[in-house]
Amino acid sequence: MTTKAYAAQTAKSPLAAHGIKRREPRPTDVQIEILFCGVCHSDLHQARDEWHDFAPTAYPCVPGHEIAGRVTKVGKDVKKFKVGDLAAVGCMVDSCRTCPSCTRGLEQYCQNFATFTYNSPDKLSGGVTFGGYSEAIVVDEAFTLKISEKANLAATAPLLCAGITTYSPLRHWKVGPGQKVGIVGLGGLGHMGVKFARAFGAHVVLFTTSPSKIEDGKRLGAHEVVVSKNASEMKAQAGSFDFLLDCVSAEHDINAYLQLLKLDGTLCLVGAPEKPLPVAAFNLIMPRKQFAGSGIGGIAETQEMLDFCAERGIGSDVEVIPIQRINEAYDRLLKGDVKYRFVIDMASLKS
Amino acid sequence: MTTKAYAAQTAKSPLAAHGIKRREPRPTDVQIEILFCGVCHSDLHQARDEWHDFAPTAYPCVPGHEIAGRVTKVGKDVKKFKVGDLAAVGCMVDSCRTCPSCTRGLEQYCQNFATFTYNSPDKLSGGVTFGGYSEAIVVDEAFTLKISEKANLAATAPLLCAGITTYSPLRHWKVGPGQKVGIVGLGGLGHMGVKFARAFGAHVVLFTTSPSKIEDGKRLGAHEVVVSKNASEMKAQAGSFDFLLDCVSAEHDINAYLQLLKLDGTLCLVGAPEKPLPVAAFNLIMPRKQFAGSGIGGIAETQEMLDFCAERGIGSDVEVIPIQRINEAYDRLLKGDVKYRFVIDMASLKS
Repeated sequence: MTTKAYAAQTAKSPLAAHGIKRREPRPTDVQIEILFCGVCHSDLHQARDEWHDFAPTAYPCVPGHEIAGRVTKVGKDVKKFKVGDLAAVGCMVDSCRTCPSCTRGLEQYCQNFATFTYNSPDKLSGGVTFGGYSEAIVVDEAFTLKISEKANLAATAPLLCAGITTYSPLRHWKVGPGQKVGIVGLGGLGHMGVKFARAFGAHVVLFTTSPSKIEDGKRLGAHEVVVSKNASEMKAQAGSFDFLLDCVSAEHDINAYLQLLKLDGTLCLVGAPEKPLPVAAFNLIMPRKQFAGSGIGGIAETQEMLDFCAERGIGSDVEVIPIQRINEAYDRLLKGDVKYRFVIDMASLKS
Repeated sequence: MTTKAYAAQTAKSPLAAHGIKRREPRPTDVQIEILFCGVCHSDLHQARDEWHDFAPTAYPCVPGHEIAGRVTKVGKDVKKFKVGDLAAVGCMVDSCRTCPSCTRGLEQYCQNFATFTYNSPDKLSGGVTFGGYSEAIVVDEAFTLKISEKANLAATAPLLCAGITTYSPLRHWKVGPGQKVGIVGLGGLGHMGVKFARAFGAHVVLFTTSPSKIEDGKRLGAHEVVVSKNASEMKAQAGSFDFLLDCVSAEHDINAYLQLLKLDGTLCLVGAPEKPLPVAAFNLIMPRKQFAGSGIGGIAETQEMLDFCAERGIGSDVEVIPIQRINEAYDRLLKGDVKYRFVIDMASLKS
C-alpha cells in the first residue's frame, strides 16, 4: 500500500514529504497506524549519512524507530494483537531468530544481522526498510511490542530506543539499592537513565556540562548533580562509583570518568562518539575496572521495560512537534535544545 | 644491616653495585636471603624513570619484585616461617590491611596505597623501599609467600609478578573448559598466560607479531597461533573469543582485538602501554563487550597460584644471568630478546 512519509533524498537535503510502499500484511504481520514517533539522534546521523563508514545511508531514507500506534490490520496467524490494540515498534523489525544471540533474546546482536527499522536491507520486500516518520508500518508480531492502554503514547514512543538503551545496561550490570550510579549527560538517553537508575533504587549522580541543568536533573530523580567541568567537584567523586552509564555522543574525556569508578566498577557507553576514545591503561588496571558498551535491548526485555514503565508511570519528557518542523527539530537537537526528546505527532502527516 | 645491592643512581646511569640498609626484623618480620630475582619490564621502566608522571623514581633505585629465597631469621611472633624455609616476595611488602580492597584480599588495590616492593614510601624505615636486586630483604610475614621445597627456584621467581599478573585475571573472569581464550603477545607475561589458560582447560590461541614464535607458542601450550600482522588470519577469528588477555606493553591496535570478542566477551589489559589506547565505541557496543584491566593479584591468590604451579610443575621459562649482566639484559629486554624471563642468580652478587 502507498504510505505517506517524510524522507531525506540526499545527505544534504532537508526531510520532506515522500510516498513509500508498505507490504500487505503476511499471516504473522501486524499493520500499525503510527500515532507518535520519537526523534532519535541516530535519525539525524543516518539521514545525513554521518555514519558513512559504519552504516552508509541508502536514499531516500525514512528515519524513525521510536514508534507508537494502533493496530489497523492483522495477519491470520497473529496471536498477540487484534485490530484496535495499541502497539509499538523499536529499532528492529526482524532477526534470524536462530543464532545464539537471538535464542538468548538478544536479537539486537543477531549474528546474521538484525533487520533494523530503517536503512536496513529489507529481506521481505527488497530495497531498504523505512522507519516511523510515516503514516503506517507493517511488522511481524514477534517484533511488535504491546503498550498499556493507560500509557501516554507521546511519552511512551521514546522508550522504544532511548528507554531500552538505558534500561538494558542498568539491568545487565544489576544496578540497584546500595549502589552509587552515575549518569553522564542529560539528553534523550541520559534523562531516561536518571529515571531508571532512581527507579531501581540506586543512589544516582548526574554528570552534566551545564550548570543550568542542575535543577532539572534533581527533578528527574538525581540525588546529586555534578558539573563535570568543575575539576574539584569531579575529584571529590573519585573512586566512588559502582557503575557509570555514559550517554554522551560528543567527544569527551573518558579517562576522567574511569577515574570515578571503584574497584570492579563498570563504565558502560551507550552514546557512540564518532572518534575513538583514548583510554589510559592505568585507569583500567589500578584498580581493576571495566569499560563496556551496550546497544539497545532485545525484544523480550523491551516488553519488560514497557511494562515496568506503565506500572511505575515512567515516560520520556517530550516536546511534541508536527512533522513539518522536523528539520528545525534536527537543528535544535544539535544545539541540545530539547527537554528531552522530540516526538512527532503523526496526525500532522495527514494534513 | 648493610646489604649489597645493585642500584640505578639516575635515570640515565646503568645499574651498579650499591650498599643499602635493611631493618632488623620486627616481631612479625621474616628476613630472607635472596637466591633468585626475576627481571620484570617494570624494573627497567622504574630504573629509567619512564613512568615519571605516574610513579616518579626516587634514586638510588633498587628494582626487583620477583624474589625467591630462603629464610635466615624470623621475628618472635612469626608463625608461618622458620629459619631455613623457602620463601618468596612479590610486588608488595605491605598495605593498610583494613580498607575494603585489603579485606577482600585485593591488597594490590589498597585504597590507602599498598607499599610496593621498590620505589614506594617506606612507612617503617623512611625513604623508599628497595627491591630484590640485593642479597637480602626483610618483609612482614603477612606479605611473604611460601614456596614448595620441590619447586625450581629460578623458574618460580617470575611467578611472583609475571605469574600472578596473568593468573589473577584468568581466574577472575573464570576462564576454563569450553571457552576460547586468546593470549596477546608472547613475552614474560604472555608465556605464563598461555601456560595458565591451557592448565585451566580453555582452548588457547596465541597472538604474536613474530612468525618465528609459532612453534614455541605451541610448545608452551597454545592450540593455535595467529600471526597478528596477517589480516586474513585475524579476520578468521572475528567474534569468536570469550576472553582475551592482552600482555602487550608496546603501542598496538586494541580495536583489532576487540573485534575478536564475542557477545559479552572481555579483553583484559595486563600490559600497560605508555600512550592512551584509542577505542572505537562501536567495538564495545555491537555486540556488548568489555575492555578491562587487571593489576598483579592479592597475597592469598598469589599463594594459591604458587601452590597451583608447584602441584602442576608450572614455572617460567627463564634465562639465568649473573647480576653483572643486568644492563645487557635490559638492552636485550627492549629488543624482546629473551625466552621468556631473565632471572638473576643472586649468588653472583657475593662475588
